[in-house]
Amino acid sequence: MALKTRFKRLEGCLKRFLPVGNPLFALRYDESIYSTLSFLLPCTHIFHFNQMTIKKNSLTSLLSVLALLLAASVGYSQHNARYINPFIGTDHMGHTFPGAVVPFGMVQLSPDTDTVPYSSGQGYNPGVYRYCAGYQYSDPTIVGFSHTHLHGTGHSDLGDFLLMPMVGEPRLNPGTANHPESGYRSRYQKDSEMAQAGYYAVTLADYDIRAELTATRRVGVHQYTFNSDKPSALILDMVHGIYNYDGKVIWASVRVVNDTLVTGYRQTNGWARERFVYFAMSFSKPLTDYSLRNEEKEVYGGFWRRWKMDHNFPQRSGRKVKAAFSFGLKKGDRLMVKLALSAVSEQGAVANLKAEAPHWSFDRYRQDAFEVWNREANRITLDATDEQKTVFYTALYHSLIHPSVYADVDGCYRGLDHEIHRQPGFTNYSIFSLWDTFRALHPWLTLMYPHETSDMVNSMLAHFDQSALPMLPVWSHHANDNWCMIGYHAVPVIADAWVKGIGGVDGRRALDAMVRTANYRPYDGLADYMDKGFVPANRSGSSASVTLEYAYDDFTISRMAASLGDTSTEKTFLKRSANFHNLFDPATGFMRARRFDGSFTQPFDALATHDMGYIEGNAWTYSLFVPHAPEKLIALMGGRKRFLPHLDSLFTMHLPEKYYAHTEDIAAVGLMGNYVHGNEPGHHIPYLYNFAGKPSATQAIVRQILTTMYHNSPSGLCGNDDCGQMSAWYLFSALGFYPFCPGLPEYELGAPLYKSAVVALPNGKQLKVLAPKLTEKNIYVKRVTMNGVEIKGHAISHQMVADGGTLEFEMISRP
Amino acid sequence: MALKTRFKRLEGCLKRFLPVGNPLFALRYDESIYSTLSFLLPCTHIFHFNQMTIKKNSLTSLLSVLALLLAASVGYSQHNARYINPFIGTDHMGHTFPGAVVPFGMVQLSPDTDTVPYSSGQGYNPGVYRYCAGYQYSDPTIVGFSHTHLHGTGHSDLGDFLLMPMVGEPRLNPGTANHPESGYRSRYQKDSEMAQAGYYAVTLADYDIRAELTATRRVGVHQYTFNSDKPSALILDMVHGIYNYDGKVIWASVRVVNDTLVTGYRQTNGWARERFVYFAMSFSKPLTDYSLRNEEKEVYGGFWRRWKMDHNFPQRSGRKVKAAFSFGLKKGDRLMVKLALSAVSEQGAVANLKAEAPHWSFDRYRQDAFEVWNREANRITLDATDEQKTVFYTALYHSLIHPSVYADVDGCYRGLDHEIHRQPGFTNYSIFSLWDTFRALHPWLTLMYPHETSDMVNSMLAHFDQSALPMLPVWSHHANDNWCMIGYHAVPVIADAWVKGIGGVDGRRALDAMVRTANYRPYDGLADYMDKGFVPANRSGSSASVTLEYAYDDFTISRMAASLGDTSTEKTFLKRSANFHNLFDPATGFMRARRFDGSFTQPFDALATHDMGYIEGNAWTYSLFVPHAPEKLIALMGGRKRFLPHLDSLFTMHLPEKYYAHTEDIAAVGLMGNYVHGNEPGHHIPYLYNFAGKPSATQAIVRQILTTMYHNSPSGLCGNDDCGQMSAWYLFSALGFYPFCPGLPEYELGAPLYKSAVVALPNGKQLKVLAPKLTEKNIYVKRVTMNGVEIKGHAISHQMVADGGTLEFEMISRP
Repeated sequence: MALKTRFKRLEGCLKRFLPVGNPLFALRYDESIYSTLSFLLPCTHIFHFNQMTIKKNSLTSLLSVLALLLAASVGYSQHNARYINPFIGTDHMGHTFPGAVVPFGMVQLSPDTDTVPYSSGQGYNPGVYRYCAGYQYSDPTIVGFSHTHLHGTGHSDLGDFLLMPMVGEPRLNPGTANHPESGYRSRYQKDSEMAQAGYYAVTLADYDIRAELTATRRVGVHQYTFNSDKPSALILDMVHGIYNYDGKVIWASVRVVNDTLVTGYRQTNGWARERFVYFAMSFSKPLTDYSLRNEEKEVYGGFWRRWKMDHNFPQRSGRKVKAAFSFGLKKGDRLMVKLALSAVSEQGAVANLKAEAPHWSFDRYRQDAFEVWNREANRITLDATDEQKTVFYTALYHSLIHPSVYADVDGCYRGLDHEIHRQPGFTNYSIFSLWDTFRALHPWLTLMYPHETSDMVNSMLAHFDQSALPMLPVWSHHANDNWCMIGYHAVPVIADAWVKGIGGVDGRRALDAMVRTANYRPYDGLADYMDKGFVPANRSGSSASVTLEYAYDDFTISRMAASLGDTSTEKTFLKRSANFHNLFDPATGFMRARRFDGSFTQPFDALATHDMGYIEGNAWTYSLFVPHAPEKLIALMGGRKRFLPHLDSLFTMHLPEKYYAHTEDIAAVGLMGNYVHGNEPGHHIPYLYNFAGKPSATQAIVRQILTTMYHNSPSGLCGNDDCGQMSAWYLFSALGFYPFCPGLPEYELGAPLYKSAVVALPNGKQLKVLAPKLTEKNIYVKRVTMNGVEIKGHAISHQMVADGGTLEFEMISRP
Repeated sequence: MALKTRFKRLEGCLKRFLPVGNPLFALRYDESIYSTLSFLLPCTHIFHFNQMTIKKNSLTSLLSVLALLLAASVGYSQHNARYINPFIGTDHMGHTFPGAVVPFGMVQLSPDTDTVPYSSGQGYNPGVYRYCAGYQYSDPTIVGFSHTHLHGTGHSDLGDFLLMPMVGEPRLNPGTANHPESGYRSRYQKDSEMAQAGYYAVTLADYDIRAELTATRRVGVHQYTFNSDKPSALILDMVHGIYNYDGKVIWASVRVVNDTLVTGYRQTNGWARERFVYFAMSFSKPLTDYSLRNEEKEVYGGFWRRWKMDHNFPQRSGRKVKAAFSFGLKKGDRLMVKLALSAVSEQGAVANLKAEAPHWSFDRYRQDAFEVWNREANRITLDATDEQKTVFYTALYHSLIHPSVYADVDGCYRGLDHEIHRQPGFTNYSIFSLWDTFRALHPWLTLMYPHETSDMVNSMLAHFDQSALPMLPVWSHHANDNWCMIGYHAVPVIADAWVKGIGGVDGRRALDAMVRTANYRPYDGLADYMDKGFVPANRSGSSASVTLEYAYDDFTISRMAASLGDTSTEKTFLKRSANFHNLFDPATGFMRARRFDGSFTQPFDALATHDMGYIEGNAWTYSLFVPHAPEKLIALMGGRKRFLPHLDSLFTMHLPEKYYAHTEDIAAVGLMGNYVHGNEPGHHIPYLYNFAGKPSATQAIVRQILTTMYHNSPSGLCGNDDCGQMSAWYLFSALGFYPFCPGLPEYELGAPLYKSAVVALPNGKQLKVLAPKLTEKNIYVKRVTMNGVEIKGHAISHQMVADGGTLEFEMISRP
């Protein structure tokens, strides 16, 4: 058989195996896939959102396909991680990054395509919002590869230690997208780009360099293949950052320890006010030549001028430090770089490097990263289409990026007090975007990752102990609190974990921290809230939202106190949790901001998201934020009879574009009427129908959201993923239940998206979620049984879920 | 007897006891002396350089005098520390500070009278040189009290954590000397100021606050007595610094931990390029109110704006952080402040505070500090006038300030690599001004403080290990090398300590570091030096000085190698040590800078200190810098017959003013002809007569320097004390011997200044230096005996000195 014929057969084979129907969902194989042969990694799905471009002109490709098929045929169901598509959400609103990361990893090694300055001197530059994760799918150039990225946030920071290989005379500035040749930046072809769980690759077109990235928990691993004859260099830019501005880098330092080891650190004043990050970087080939520069004029700093510092001088520090390293590489040579992070010290980074990245096989690191993801993905088996699996497992992937480990391999970590804490007895975590994640992300982790959740709670309690203010974290950000958004939502996270029995937490210590946080009068209108029962509009521009969220948070304290037998605290906070009543305006039927004198603020526009006392929401959304007392809310709003059409209106009304055109956090695609799935305040709302006596509406709307607002596409997220909250909403809802009120050990029932989903619970038990009659028409739930026993009502207890068994939904075609 | 009569008697008594003949040496007693009653501290000499101002109008004064006499009569000879006058050198050139410090203390708590900016935007501001120690005796105002000062340097830095008490509305800027009321600065009367070993006090006239300072090794202790009715505040200025410029403070942070504890840190980019210093400060009374400010506009830093941060908000960070603390003090109240330093962390500072300053008795801290000094001063007993004792014991005091301990109580310290090093097995030291101190200061410490010297050598070896360059320290400056001055003079310090047998040092490790330092080709012309035998003028503006000093340093390596039996290294470096020959110009008789082609640079001016290839010296001085081969030098210069008149000329010639008018490091008073005692390169020269066969000239000139260039006066030093080098020269020379060539275990003999000096050696033995026939005329030495045996030649071995016994100088009136 001629090679060509053989290939044709393989191609046919391939098409049967893999879902290539969607033009956006295509397969490509090249030398990178070839490399899979060496370790038989089952990386069948390598994502491109281009037309299928199979190179038919080489044996390499052929071998690649063979490897691929082999992998696909052996243990297909054991490799759910291959459904993970890191490109989902990288276009426009998702603010995800496509690079390499492992679950809860401290390193997020990913390409940056641009990083518009925070401020251009004329104040805030709205363009920066686009680059929260440093990457936009449609951008034509890549600036380089940096080691820290936030996943899905609506604000950003990080982008530490950008590396970029290049050929030709080393250039230390990034250049511009229009003129990449003016800097080290490079153009790239979209079809040269690929990503899978724990792996990213691209060909830098301007330099003909194949760049591949993978990661361990604390180490970014790079492999650069140089296909050019020209002299090459590796650029390290210590000034580069995401949401940058002149002066963001407080100080930076680089030191060439020997010809294969470079260490350094930088401090930044960004979203995190004072952030320290250290690195240790080792090369697979010895340095032949290097140049460390400080691009700032040095006002002072001793008698360093005596040194010739611009060439092969091993130490440089300052505010604008950059470096170029050369290795005497020839065409075809490969350079591996392993860069470990630490928030503790350069020594800590060196220890992390030694512990996690002892060898020089890029493929083994890649395989290991994939296997870590695979282990997590394999915990859930779905009877679903590939498209559904891709969306689900990518959501799973996105739910396991933050919170991130923020500690060295020896357990040492930098605390909020900027002290180094040793032997804490738990693994320290950071990146808690709590206003977002208390809703579903943390309940998901509590259900599936109780050990990690215990560490996270202990991290929050340590944060409390280390804080100059008696407060649990609001937005824990690498040994800083950036104070983003409102409320004290560490409280529901801890209460939820506690009432669900995660263990490993000192309940009384936790309750004390929760109570002290909730009683810290200087915080955001809290004094007035405590004295008057609401935050006056005079005190806060978000007074209505703040009041409603405090009331909910307080409810969770009362639950925690009850569980600990502290009746006095239980009563105090139960009383406070009724404060939502104080905002209700019977005249308009909405929760409204009130002034100090008790009057409602005027004018009032129920659709406006600004100047009404709400934050990232309007009266419609926020008036429904009483997750701890939905029945009372319904009563307040006139009973089910009036409430149901009100809720229907929310989902069906016409929202004039002016109300969301300038709103950062949602895309038009994330709207259903005036319901905004692209942002968090409404995430519980679809389940409100359960309480209003119309669960079928919950089932229908949840399904509509699941199927229309999450896609296998770079633009497949309808809003910021917000550290995994959007994704966690999907995970729960697709499985048929949702943590409507974290802090209560129960879930509201919806309807599953799959005929069968089998979940391996952390206690070794199995939860089977079955909906055998589910079809495109049978989307309503007639009845639900757990292990054959019908569930009365619209909720299921956490205990039942955690104990496992068979949760069966009987699906029918009409409500 | 009437009170007045009683006082008269006491006054008479006093005059017999105490030397008040010198109008500059006066006694004063006031409430501070009164406080001595409480602990019977024998602080008889409290220095003022004003007319005697005895307050006769109060019982307080009377009691003070009683206490004083009591103290003076009990164990008079046991309290040599009372001769220490911290004001010596505070006027004009000495660059000493009058504040509180203990031997080798990490804290130097002292008033700053001004701190002219390093640069006023038009480049270097020469006015800053005046304020190397932050204090000039004649200045009319005090800015505040800061915790770190360099002793006697010709360049500066530090001034960390300035505290200033004030009354009235808190002001956060320092104000100016002409308009102190525009800031927190205050005027003061000179006669309200006093200082003794470990204690400083002044009355801040604008606020009627009595300020008293004392210190432990790592803690500055303040006591402020408020005599005003007005509201008062304590200012903390984190921007203040010595040799400051806009941007010197890289970052700073202050945190109110509770109402009696405040912690913080700052990083500075000064003479030390990147310097971290942390503090923990506790108050004797709880805070009632405070304000932490950042005076810089904050470009970014998270959502901190939600906080009302200007009043009682417990945390602030940024580049321009200042604070005002209030304590609700009333007239007559006293506030104590204890501020501990650490270079490791705030936790480290808290631990230092707890360990060293556990109680709240200011007087006990003061007494303890005094006693620590007293213990050291009592090791040497002199038969001398009070004036002589004051100069001697103050020199002793000045010789024990630097190097300073740079480690926490638990031994942890910040290394040159900015890592925290734990359990190093030695006490880490910093502030090594080695170009100055290798000459006499380190030999003094090696003789008297071998244990500390061992720690210092180990600190230098650790510095070597931590350095990105294979180099021992040049100027070790708080986890930085500021690279000030030339040579590699850690080498002679280590060699000298080694050949004198200090112990506690790994000799081979040390030799390796010394050799690698001396072979690091990129350093300051070293490659050419190694290849050609001299540093060409094309490579360095100080090529002649550098070559001569390398040659000497190399000699000490050869001695160290010889002592370790490393013959190869011994020979290599002995050969290198002859490189001084390469600079000798027979035509002019001077050591001269040569160009790469071997020719001497032109034009040549033997008196010029600039552009001739010398640094801080001229051809006359530097041509004599061959301490390791003086006989060869003499031969080179034509033999004794030509050398002696040449040396005479040096001391007698007229040096036109133009040659020193603009030279920073010397005062006219520090000149003897063209010999410059106010700067270091010539410190060995007076002893050169010994080698030229005219030791009587050494004896006469050394005596002339001892008696005319060191005084009990604020302007009593003729040049910068340079971390104690000027003082150590005095100590040795006054005792009759001097380490002419550190690295050789011997001392050149001079003539003692006292009829008797008894030195308690560290091994428990005693060295008696006797010159019973010494008079103002009998200043020449006829013969010298050690334990009755005549010493042949003009030197005495270290072993003989260290073994103790009686070193007797037979003094006569003619050479």
